[in-house]
Amino acid sequence: MQARLSVRQILHPQSVGVIGASDDVGKFGGRIMHYLIKHGFPGTIVPVNPSRAEVRGVHAYPRIGDAPGPVDVCILAVPAAVLVQAVRECAEAGVGCCVVMTTGFAEIGPAGRARQDELEAIARTHGMRIVGPNCMGLINPHHALALTSSLVLEDGELARGRIGLISQSGALMVSIYDRARSADIGFSACVSLGNQSDVEICDVLEYMRDDPCTEAICLYVEGFRSPRRFLELASDCRRAGKPVLMVKSGRTEAGVRAALSHTASLAGSYRVLASACAERGVLLMDDVDDMVRAADALLRWGVPGGDGVAVLSPSGGGAAVMIDRISERGLRPAVFGEATRVRLAEHLGPTFIGNPIDLGGRLDSGAAGLGGELVRVLAGDPDVGVLCVLLTTAPGFVAVARGIGEALLAAAKPFVLSVTPGTSADAPRTVLRKIGCPYYDHADSALRVLGTLLEARRLGAVVAVETVRPGGLPATDAVLPTGRLTEPEVKQLVARYGVPVGEERVCADVEAAVKAATAIGFPVALKPVCRALVHKSDIGAVRLGLGSVEALRDAWAEVMTAVHRALPDATIEGGVVQQMHRGELELIMGVRRDPQFGPVLVVGAGGVLAELLDDVTVALAPVGVARVMEMLRGLKVWPLLDGWRGRPKLDVAAVADAACRLSWLANDLGDRLVDLELNPLLVGREDEGMVAVDGRGAVE
Amino acid sequence: MQARLSVRQILHPQSVGVIGASDDVGKFGGRIMHYLIKHGFPGTIVPVNPSRAEVRGVHAYPRIGDAPGPVDVCILAVPAAVLVQAVRECAEAGVGCCVVMTTGFAEIGPAGRARQDELEAIARTHGMRIVGPNCMGLINPHHALALTSSLVLEDGELARGRIGLISQSGALMVSIYDRARSADIGFSACVSLGNQSDVEICDVLEYMRDDPCTEAICLYVEGFRSPRRFLELASDCRRAGKPVLMVKSGRTEAGVRAALSHTASLAGSYRVLASACAERGVLLMDDVDDMVRAADALLRWGVPGGDGVAVLSPSGGGAAVMIDRISERGLRPAVFGEATRVRLAEHLGPTFIGNPIDLGGRLDSGAAGLGGELVRVLAGDPDVGVLCVLLTTAPGFVAVARGIGEALLAAAKPFVLSVTPGTSADAPRTVLRKIGCPYYDHADSALRVLGTLLEARRLGAVVAVETVRPGGLPATDAVLPTGRLTEPEVKQLVARYGVPVGEERVCADVEAAVKAATAIGFPVALKPVCRALVHKSDIGAVRLGLGSVEALRDAWAEVMTAVHRALPDATIEGGVVQQMHRGELELIMGVRRDPQFGPVLVVGAGGVLAELLDDVTVALAPVGVARVMEMLRGLKVWPLLDGWRGRPKLDVAAVADAACRLSWLANDLGDRLVDLELNPLLVGREDEGMVAVDGRGAVE
Repeated sequence: MQARLSVRQILHPQSVGVIGASDDVGKFGGRIMHYLIKHGFPGTIVPVNPSRAEVRGVHAYPRIGDAPGPVDVCILAVPAAVLVQAVRECAEAGVGCCVVMTTGFAEIGPAGRARQDELEAIARTHGMRIVGPNCMGLINPHHALALTSSLVLEDGELARGRIGLISQSGALMVSIYDRARSADIGFSACVSLGNQSDVEICDVLEYMRDDPCTEAICLYVEGFRSPRRFLELASDCRRAGKPVLMVKSGRTEAGVRAALSHTASLAGSYRVLASACAERGVLLMDDVDDMVRAADALLRWGVPGGDGVAVLSPSGGGAAVMIDRISERGLRPAVFGEATRVRLAEHLGPTFIGNPIDLGGRLDSGAAGLGGELVRVLAGDPDVGVLCVLLTTAPGFVAVARGIGEALLAAAKPFVLSVTPGTSADAPRTVLRKIGCPYYDHADSALRVLGTLLEARRLGAVVAVETVRPGGLPATDAVLPTGRLTEPEVKQLVARYGVPVGEERVCADVEAAVKAATAIGFPVALKPVCRALVHKSDIGAVRLGLGSVEALRDAWAEVMTAVHRALPDATIEGGVVQQMHRGELELIMGVRRDPQFGPVLVVGAGGVLAELLDDVTVALAPVGVARVMEMLRGLKVWPLLDGWRGRPKLDVAAVADAACRLSWLANDLGDRLVDLELNPLLVGREDEGMVAVDGRGAVE
Repeated sequence: MQARLSVRQILHPQSVGVIGASDDVGKFGGRIMHYLIKHGFPGTIVPVNPSRAEVRGVHAYPRIGDAPGPVDVCILAVPAAVLVQAVRECAEAGVGCCVVMTTGFAEIGPAGRARQDELEAIARTHGMRIVGPNCMGLINPHHALALTSSLVLEDGELARGRIGLISQSGALMVSIYDRARSADIGFSACVSLGNQSDVEICDVLEYMRDDPCTEAICLYVEGFRSPRRFLELASDCRRAGKPVLMVKSGRTEAGVRAALSHTASLAGSYRVLASACAERGVLLMDDVDDMVRAADALLRWGVPGGDGVAVLSPSGGGAAVMIDRISERGLRPAVFGEATRVRLAEHLGPTFIGNPIDLGGRLDSGAAGLGGELVRVLAGDPDVGVLCVLLTTAPGFVAVARGIGEALLAAAKPFVLSVTPGTSADAPRTVLRKIGCPYYDHADSALRVLGTLLEARRLGAVVAVETVRPGGLPATDAVLPTGRLTEPEVKQLVARYGVPVGEERVCADVEAAVKAATAIGFPVALKPVCRALVHKSDIGAVRLGLGSVEALRDAWAEVMTAVHRALPDATIEGGVVQQMHRGELELIMGVRRDPQFGPVLVVGAGGVLAELLDDVTVALAPVGVARVMEMLRGLKVWPLLDGWRGRPKLDVAAVADAACRLSWLANDLGDRLVDLELNPLLVGREDEGMVAVDGRGAVE
């Protein structure tokens, strides 16, 4: 068995076989041949066709096994019925990798799944790699390799550049490629992966991490085969200074179904993925074309040095529309410094009032250079991180566009330039392309790229992944409980990790409860201890504020009756008497095992309104205190923790410490974790701490 | 003095004068002449130029007064310094309307404001109309009238169509016009208004309401001169079946500043405007180009018959991306009926699982007709209200595009079609244009138009403006109090309108308070009655749950001391003893005078978290119960009123009745209203009613 090819070898083959090669560009095998030749593949092309001696002037072979010497990579677009046999022949002929465009595998259900298993077995046995099935091949402009049947290779040269594109969807890959090429953006490589039966996203990402031609990476992902590996590679890319941008489908229920049916991908929790991505600087987007534009912008300028946005337009209306849309997206209009204001006022006279800048009515006095001059002034302002320019028609439109475009290119700051008119702006667009000035035909794209540049800046400040174990935790090999836990067991467990819980005693009978209450001090709370009962308050079995022995006795009887009525067969282990606590705010804190990423920490606002608003934030466990602080600042209730409108500041340090500790508990439980939830936590004022007053959970 | 021209006359002049006419298309007056002639203006053109006998072959006059007979409309793009004199000459020559492109008026501050006042005085004196200043003229394709200097008139014919465009911004007007024309969308008329010194938005809207050529109306607005009139006209347009769409800038603080500096427009509360627009079916958008596309879509298909969206793409990835983005926008993926599912499965085989539909891998078997066939199946499904198609490259791309395009056009249902690749899709785009099938180059536009179509459907269900006075209100000429009101006065006032308030007694001294409390029944609340004190609880002067005479006596002393300490010079009118109330939820309800629209009703969630979330809804007063119900359903806390997760349903009928009555009080107060706020309202369970337990307010 040969050594399996690396992704680098797959992307740099010396010989390429085309199974089903044809002269007819109406057929898959015809177009593939055509594009290989047209784009000047420098290695050996091996057409395979049982009935032709030559295809497109290249010597053809009836079967791949007839070709002299081993072939590095074969591409197959034959019908599903004969695909497995064709792949077997490749494997037996010592082919290094099959790129399988054929569909009808895992994505269509059990029958296809079985066929894909067969493919995988062949590949495993022979040490052959597979890209696909259900993919659209790959393109490596730096190796003059066009290994796909897509029509987008018909026009022009291969778009060579610095962006690596990994797409599960083949059609999206070539559509993205084509649109980017039309905007003069090129790629270091484009790889479509389809069902990821062998070569998967992370294999290609690892290649691109190390590939010197790749300086930024764009991914379209439906589902990960190895989510944790993706995160590690994303961290590597961050360290290597290569931005990673991603559109992940399956963000919504309908999208999850679509991803499953398209590439048999199982989507995990998007919220967890998003949090993990934020920690690693991965930029999540919702539009694949704008993703490439944003990558290009990051390669041009890097991360903006400031978050202030300056808006300039020859149209006052256009400027007003843009500044509204920028503000509505939560971005910040720049506030110009005094020096800038003075210079702007010199040029603009009395209409100048600040950001946005309206050139309107001033372009006609032969001052086509004014736009460029203003761009220079704005770019020099320390509060301007990004320039946002909207071009509408203006007298001397081409000269205005050129002047502004050249000034933007000369400025050392990132910009987005929208050109929104129709065909009247064709000439300015041509000029902008000629001088190499990127522009957008639609303000949405400009705003989205702008937002992504500033998101990259924001994520640059996000605390990196935590790996330092806090002090005072149990040893990592400590014995931890299993099974469904009672509330006291949950509290004991989290208390071992240093999470504050209230004083309480488990009592076997009412007399013990009375003693416990007397020791703790009235008023107390009383709850049943019953492993089978998850939602105690739903059956009225939680009694708070019991102020006397009599009240406690009555409550004991009522609580036990309620449990017995709700769960007649359940074992009641007793009752738990708890100290009563007060807090300024209720929070929820929990950990659970995510099917993709493993243990995650969840922190959210408590109470019914917060639950209604789904005010929670998640992160992969373990997390550090600084990251929890970031999470808390992202909650809608954050102002209530932070002393909003004269309210007292609460003890967020205690909350962050507890969350950090709980996340380490989750980490230590690892795959045994099902979930643990502390709800509510009562948070006191600064230095008053916090306390978990109820909890539930299960450990495997 | 002549009769002032109507907007219809301004848009259909028999003669047009060009002040500063020139042969040089590098000048304003040159381009205007060029476009008037090029686009075949059928009336008389009167060039005015002191030093030319002829301009572009048309007899010219040294001064407008030299022209024979009165000229209907003159256009002026002369420098600001000579503009006023030029306008005066027009007025003296009996010109009907001056279209003033010159800038440097109210938008630049006091000096310009004075110059604009001068303009207005001239016009008033002579009964002459003015469009602008600071505008870009107007276009009436149905009258072959191109009265602007914009370069967008250079190419092709005037874009004649059914959409009326009113834009304060001149540059945006022509940019919108050009982009629409490039997508084969035409206009009944385009009018830019600039500073609205005379002809204002509502004048043109009134014209378009009545104009038989105008079937839908798009507005770009920075500020209204007559907001209430706009609303009346919007209602008229709705009755006339003419959709009204609007982009309003000044939605954010930065946008408000921009609108002010651009056309001297004062922006009012966008929230109030948005509510008023919703009641009148006006569709608010944030992108001017997509506004026209949405108007075109509404003209093609009317309002969608259902809100389910079916997604179809040759790219499974494209389909997955679109269904996610649709869901994230709160739109609903259609759920196909059984008959549809059977037919789809016949075509698609085992990969078919529902919405979205992925054609991928099935287009190569010579089945370019498959796309069209699937469109027909989807269009036949009763749950599909709108079809959303994303075209990526595919084998036989042109045939696929044509097949899908023709089927979409034949279907009786609205659709949005995105074509996202780059130049590889130029041929399909050409075919789509040829067959008259609208498409979008960017998914954002498609999604925005889709959203607007469904918003039109939603607004169709919004209750229209209320005009029926509920029973039991005071007579409209009843005497109502004035000045800053005390809490008991506010409650007495709202109680006269039927808003439930708690039992309370105003007491001059502590002995009276004790008597009152005994009559009301302990526990009671005690508050000071002091006109100068607005926020009683901030100084600790609200005492709740006083359970005994002793507690009340102590509280009285403390409350009075607190007021005296906080406001040593204020008159304390006594104390008010109030019955204690409980409710399931706190709300806030108030009325205030909006500077643009007059009395408005505000209803929102109470409590600190709700305040933090800004969970309020507004409507112009008066409103009917049905509209209040809609408002309540729009609150984030609505589920808590509606029995969320097993909670009791609350008495929303009582809340709606009270809000309706309060809005009539605001209506009756009219301009005298400053504001009245009831906070909190305590809402009980169904049939338990609600009660206002505190209030403040002022009436002029």
